[in-house]
Amino acid sequence: MPATDFSQSEYDARLTKTRSAMATQGIETLIVADPSNMAWLTGYDGWSFYVPQVVIVPSSGTPLWWGRTQDKAGAAQTTWIGDDNLFDWPEEHVQHPDHHPYDALITLLRERGWTRALGVEMDNYYYSAASHRILETAFGRDAIADVTGLVNWQRAVKSEAELAMMRKAGQLTAHMHATLREGFREGRPKNELVAEVQAAGVAGLPGLAGDYPAIAPIAPSGLEASASHITWNDRPLVRGEATYFEVSGCYHRYHCPASRTLFLGEVPSDIRRAEEAVLQAIEDTFAAARPGVACEEVAACVYDSFARAGYVKANRTGYPIGLSYPPDWGERTMSLRPGDTTPLQENMTFHLMPGLWTPDWGVAITESFVVTPDGAQPLADIPRALVVKS
Amino acid sequence: MPATDFSQSEYDARLTKTRSAMATQGIETLIVADPSNMAWLTGYDGWSFYVPQVVIVPSSGTPLWWGRTQDKAGAAQTTWIGDDNLFDWPEEHVQHPDHHPYDALITLLRERGWTRALGVEMDNYYYSAASHRILETAFGRDAIADVTGLVNWQRAVKSEAELAMMRKAGQLTAHMHATLREGFREGRPKNELVAEVQAAGVAGLPGLAGDYPAIAPIAPSGLEASASHITWNDRPLVRGEATYFEVSGCYHRYHCPASRTLFLGEVPSDIRRAEEAVLQAIEDTFAAARPGVACEEVAACVYDSFARAGYVKANRTGYPIGLSYPPDWGERTMSLRPGDTTPLQENMTFHLMPGLWTPDWGVAITESFVVTPDGAQPLADIPRALVVKS
Repeated sequence: MPATDFSQSEYDARLTKTRSAMATQGIETLIVADPSNMAWLTGYDGWSFYVPQVVIVPSSGTPLWWGRTQDKAGAAQTTWIGDDNLFDWPEEHVQHPDHHPYDALITLLRERGWTRALGVEMDNYYYSAASHRILETAFGRDAIADVTGLVNWQRAVKSEAELAMMRKAGQLTAHMHATLREGFREGRPKNELVAEVQAAGVAGLPGLAGDYPAIAPIAPSGLEASASHITWNDRPLVRGEATYFEVSGCYHRYHCPASRTLFLGEVPSDIRRAEEAVLQAIEDTFAAARPGVACEEVAACVYDSFARAGYVKANRTGYPIGLSYPPDWGERTMSLRPGDTTPLQENMTFHLMPGLWTPDWGVAITESFVVTPDGAQPLADIPRALVVKS
Repeated sequence: MPATDFSQSEYDARLTKTRSAMATQGIETLIVADPSNMAWLTGYDGWSFYVPQVVIVPSSGTPLWWGRTQDKAGAAQTTWIGDDNLFDWPEEHVQHPDHHPYDALITLLRERGWTRALGVEMDNYYYSAASHRILETAFGRDAIADVTGLVNWQRAVKSEAELAMMRKAGQLTAHMHATLREGFREGRPKNELVAEVQAAGVAGLPGLAGDYPAIAPIAPSGLEASASHITWNDRPLVRGEATYFEVSGCYHRYHCPASRTLFLGEVPSDIRRAEEAVLQAIEDTFAAARPGVACEEVAACVYDSFARAGYVKANRTGYPIGLSYPPDWGERTMSLRPGDTTPLQENMTFHLMPGLWTPDWGVAITESFVVTPDGAQPLADIPRALVVKS
């Protein structure tokens, strides 16, 4: 972001797609609280999602931004919607036990006559149960429908401009992994290595500056690596342990996550066997992931490769990615897993997660890809093999 | 974190305080979704809060951790509550359109007979409107009370062990600001400087490793600085612009935020006048902030200093801090603002935010402090004056 990253016609197209989905679901006014959806629709950018803020999409006309007074200047600087469409709630509401910013949202909606056929994101981030109750109390339960994911689904197929952003994020991710391979050595405290890798992603490359990713580096070692979401500590890297490193570059809020597994010393045969199964799973998936193929068929490439190697993989093996804010760089629509029959479309983008976690170690080598008529193409160019130093 | 950062007696005391508040509010079983509250009660640490997870506090016995299967190993590694008290929801629920992890939570609560006098955090992060509806549908609206902030309030007065953590975070913050002062110069792309400052906070100091802070660096320059929550971009630092830098070190999830304002070139007189008012506000506040003084009296020190300089400050000027996860390092209980009559207690900790934002520039110099009988003591040692380079 800002909004100037994309043409007005691209924003218009996003709005048209969103309104079409609204019409299908009988929604006249959509209230969007997910900061990724807010940014995708208007360009809004800022670390302000810790207080209530929304974009309102009426059935016609320009969307409205509504947020804290302090953040209105940021909305003026980053969105395309114009000052007339920025509305703020009074500062005295901020984190107050006795009143709530949504009281002001009710007033705004009433003034506009937008009090029925409202759509909200009941299971998205930063739309609290308390906020929802305030809307229900004002307008009645029947006036409000849950359309979680409505906007997220419109984001699934990327424009060429978005793909260019994601490839730039992928260059940052590759730079981060190069820094990681270089700096990974016995005895090094993990936090030192994380500091270098993060700095590589933000300092970036000539003409290519990095932004903060939506997830902090995940970097468990040894026994820790049996836990999927451990971040880091100051324990030195030791021989005989695998370290799993999951990071993403971020370019103007677009992501391209990739994980690699690193090992100090002689690699045990069971970890080598897991590596082979994971690498084969990536090859098979990339060959299969063409338009029209179902998500579950793509996932089967991973499960089958693991099964041939004698492993059972029980969790999903990928999800869509793109524009995002903390706490998740996934889009929370499709999943690469059994039962998801959504057909792939050209220019959808996924983070493929073929990982194996046993009680004693974890091995994961993951890739972000775009769907093309010729199969999946990786969005970053990073050597895939286990990184081994002895 | 992990839980071993604190003694078992400290965790017991936290639980006792929490249960006392539960009893006062008629709560038999408390469902805690805020990751900061989960960590404070059990030690749980991991970047897993993007999917549903809670700590359940029954009226007696050990609390339960409930989360995604993938994260159970992380809970075993980081909490004190023991493997028997870890419960997981099946992986197939993750971000699925047709079923929800809270369905499994209902089953667990029914098995335990915890189906009435439930307390939930309706306005905390990561407790969605959809999750709340599932609980209401299962147990009825009357079985569930909103106790947002119940645990947050118990965190307000810090133990000596917690203050030690926050002072270590303060050393990291000071190290970040030293790196900032050193690296701030004309023509430097902002993202390069942010990369260095972040790396300083994570690489840390000998024996003092940094964690990820709950808020990314806020670093607007010039006109951007009229917007409070702009992060960074690749624009080079230019003469005649103020840059506002808000960062925090993070030590084992404890924070100590501090902001400074930096300027390249000759400082205009209106910015100097704002600086003087801000520095005086800090002095006055630190002298006033003793046990028994109300939050609004502390805030008045800031407003009065600004008023004497001819400025009107319209927003709150501080909030409690401590243990936290993204998206906010505040505790969301008290505020330093008019109308908040909460009396300060010894060992409460706040981020004091005397900042002035005009349409053209922003100046803020902020300090984290602990309340003592002799007034406020800063938790970090950082030169306060405008950082000026010509």
